[in-house]
Amino acid sequence: MAAVDFPGIAKQFVEHYYTTFDTDRKNLATLYRENSMLTFESVQQLGVNNITEKLVSLPFQKVKHQFAEPDAQPSPSGGIIILVTGQLVRRDFQVDDESRPLPYSQVFQLCQDANGAWFVFNDVFKLVLG
Amino acid sequence: MAAVDFPGIAKQFVEHYYTTFDTDRKNLATLYRENSMLTFESVQQLGVNNITEKLVSLPFQKVKHQFAEPDAQPSPSGGIIILVTGQLVRRDFQVDDESRPLPYSQVFQLCQDANGAWFVFNDVFKLVLG
Repeated sequence: MAAVDFPGIAKQFVEHYYTTFDTDRKNLATLYRENSMLTFESVQQLGVNNITEKLVSLPFQKVKHQFAEPDAQPSPSGGIIILVTGQLVRRDFQVDDESRPLPYSQVFQLCQDANGAWFVFNDVFKLVLG
Repeated sequence: MAAVDFPGIAKQFVEHYYTTFDTDRKNLATLYRENSMLTFESVQQLGVNNITEKLVSLPFQKVKHQFAEPDAQPSPSGGIIILVTGQLVRRDFQVDDESRPLPYSQVFQLCQDANGAWFVFNDVFKLVLG
């Protein structure tokens, strides 16, 4: 079996994730499963339906993620831990009263399903307030 | 078996980790094992000795971590994924020429060893540049 290219998978995943998020967020549903977890600004969701609903209902309607090269490590279960830091640029905000970019960090753990496809098992998103 | 209190363990761990870091960094060695990984500002270390050497040799000699309540999730292997965001306050810097607090984020995965003690399997630290 070939060695898993953790950094390559992480980079590809993160680019795909944020491109999907910034164009049509509901399509993120394909990346989660029934046992996936999301903690978004300390509010927890379990399962693909709850997670997708949460992401689609976030106050900012148009957003762009600008992010640095992610860091990745293998985890004991054969998954991949990914840490991303970046900035959230809101292009059309409805609730927040300022438009400066918001620094954030996000950690994902990717796991493989029975078919070998990578999905998001753990997802924790947090704004970094200076 | 009692349910594992993930948020409680995460909070206790993070407080212990940063108190140790800010008082006598070399004592962090007790929290890592031979298969632990550290990615510090995208530079990777493997194993307790390399990790401790890296942490002890960081340019800032006195530092204080100010951090928000961590977010925690269980991982598939029975571990705990923890995301912390905070600020690094250097009290005596030798290399950097500015002393403003540096926003950072750090993700840990804690696992249990054969004796049931929690240790750091994954550790990724990254400054969040605005």
